[in-house]
Amino acid sequence: MSDINEIWEMPVPWLSGQGIHSDVALAGRMRLARNLENYPFPHHASEDKLEEIVTRIQDVITSQTVLPEATFIPLQRLSLSERQMLLERRLISPEFAQRSSHGAVVLDRQCRISLMVNEEDHIRLQALDAGMNLDLLWEQVHRVDMDLGKVLDYAFSEEFGSLTSCPTNTGTGLRISILMYLPALALDEGNLEAIFHQANPAGLTVRGFYGEGSDVVGNIYQISNKLTLGWTEFRLLEDLLKIASQIVDKEQDARRKLMENRHIDVEDKIFRSLGLLERARKLSSREFIEQYANLMLGILIGLITEIEPQALHELILWVQPAHLQWQYGKDLSPVERDVYRAEMVRTKLGL
Amino acid sequence: MSDINEIWEMPVPWLSGQGIHSDVALAGRMRLARNLENYPFPHHASEDKLEEIVTRIQDVITSQTVLPEATFIPLQRLSLSERQMLLERRLISPEFAQRSSHGAVVLDRQCRISLMVNEEDHIRLQALDAGMNLDLLWEQVHRVDMDLGKVLDYAFSEEFGSLTSCPTNTGTGLRISILMYLPALALDEGNLEAIFHQANPAGLTVRGFYGEGSDVVGNIYQISNKLTLGWTEFRLLEDLLKIASQIVDKEQDARRKLMENRHIDVEDKIFRSLGLLERARKLSSREFIEQYANLMLGILIGLITEIEPQALHELILWVQPAHLQWQYGKDLSPVERDVYRAEMVRTKLGL
Repeated sequence: MSDINEIWEMPVPWLSGQGIHSDVALAGRMRLARNLENYPFPHHASEDKLEEIVTRIQDVITSQTVLPEATFIPLQRLSLSERQMLLERRLISPEFAQRSSHGAVVLDRQCRISLMVNEEDHIRLQALDAGMNLDLLWEQVHRVDMDLGKVLDYAFSEEFGSLTSCPTNTGTGLRISILMYLPALALDEGNLEAIFHQANPAGLTVRGFYGEGSDVVGNIYQISNKLTLGWTEFRLLEDLLKIASQIVDKEQDARRKLMENRHIDVEDKIFRSLGLLERARKLSSREFIEQYANLMLGILIGLITEIEPQALHELILWVQPAHLQWQYGKDLSPVERDVYRAEMVRTKLGL
Repeated sequence: MSDINEIWEMPVPWLSGQGIHSDVALAGRMRLARNLENYPFPHHASEDKLEEIVTRIQDVITSQTVLPEATFIPLQRLSLSERQMLLERRLISPEFAQRSSHGAVVLDRQCRISLMVNEEDHIRLQALDAGMNLDLLWEQVHRVDMDLGKVLDYAFSEEFGSLTSCPTNTGTGLRISILMYLPALALDEGNLEAIFHQANPAGLTVRGFYGEGSDVVGNIYQISNKLTLGWTEFRLLEDLLKIASQIVDKEQDARRKLMENRHIDVEDKIFRSLGLLERARKLSSREFIEQYANLMLGILIGLITEIEPQALHELILWVQPAHLQWQYGKDLSPVERDVYRAEMVRTKLGL
């Protein structure tokens, strides 16, 4: 990426609607937390030390020994709306988006792999892609991790494994998560609760679309491992895959049943969502995500044929504030955003 | 009317959308309560006495001395669904629709004037028409009342006037009511409350669409006189007209303001209602009436042009159970009715 303005044009592969089990798994994410030896964790480091870390990572990236063709962007080069945009694309964290110095973002050319410098840890490396091809994601982060480990001294303990700022990340430093849309299972709340109840003792945690502390909206659930310490990466991966596959099966089964026994309540809900998106003159992000879920269900069980699922997926991004404002080329008040959002949805869905 | 089956084909003039101030006043109704001398009120009369009264009225009608060309229908000739249909057309009362004997209905050819025999009083005579042409309605009921009075002995007291079963009707026996749709005023609830507060001491009462004890749905309000005793018919008429005209002015003014300052919230509400009616796969009567109000507002302030107000008016009738079942030619469970109702609305509005 030669110019910072080009970041708006970067691909967003995790919204492609492609990949393994992409009819249930929106996207998979694999994240590693790493720190450099002989440096305090970011929250305790001086500004000089933080800059030193930024420079060390910058040297590695610009030398093209790790992640060739990746772009290194110091935080101070990013405007608030650019940081907000990276957040909306799930390439940086909410806390990181608030900051404007002593950090950096690294993005590979395809935007599948990204790295935050001086977030909670010195290095937060992630691979993010559509579907739930967790093996491939693991290969990607692992390769970059290995390459980085060759040129940087990681903080590592024989006893605990990777040392991290927050103890919940210590050990493997690995967090795996899958965004799943479960509109059919969500119709029977008891069913869904039973599944999640089962996921919990297995060391997995279920959250809303926007991660930690967020509500579930639009029947999009984020399933991730709770523990990082005491297990190998492969065991974590295996456990998550097992539960995720069960959920995929159950959701697919619930959809099949819906297709066989067309239920008027479900049909009504789906078509009302379509009517709402066709006609509303203002629309909050949250309301969009709720209708999105109903429409996706409608597409998946064959009731809605006039909407491209891909267009619906991409709207997840375009309805969000930074993307919306960029699209219309101006700052918008929250009320104006609701108005432009309703218009954007109609336009992008061809309604 | 030669055949009872033809009652389904009778006109429904009060839904024509015509008449004075028909942009605010859906319909006006003028009702007189009368009783025959030397007969107990219906609730205290024996079956023989009730039948005697029915026969006396039948003789008057079939002799064509009063209401020539009117049809006399004994209750026992009407099925439950036919009585339900007459109720939905506001030609008989809910209590009367429950009964199947010892009473009768008289309908004039245009269905503007109707008469219940042995409802709460021996005679309940009403004129019902679109708009609020109360003078004309008064002339109509008054003429029939005079004609009936010539051939029947009314129970009358020099002191109290007409004697009625319930004292709230004694005196003039006159109840005047106007169905008004006030969607613009209803947007500012405080405004509407102030108006109704003013109406109350003037001896007027405000109710929902379905009369006594009914909620206001769809911003349709029924305004009527509370008192019948101690005032002349002209004074009652004058008082109601005065308040009604003020309400008409205020509603029209509120709509003008809405047209001048297009408010996104109002626009959003109107178009969401359109989207709902276009797409819903099941619809309760109540929900229809709510959307009806928003759509009427949209039509009245020029936002919705693709729907004929007349078609919307007529749906008030067709969405109701008896009319809906007649249209589809079969009995329908409540759930089925909701499904057929949604379909009927789309069809009749050409959505």
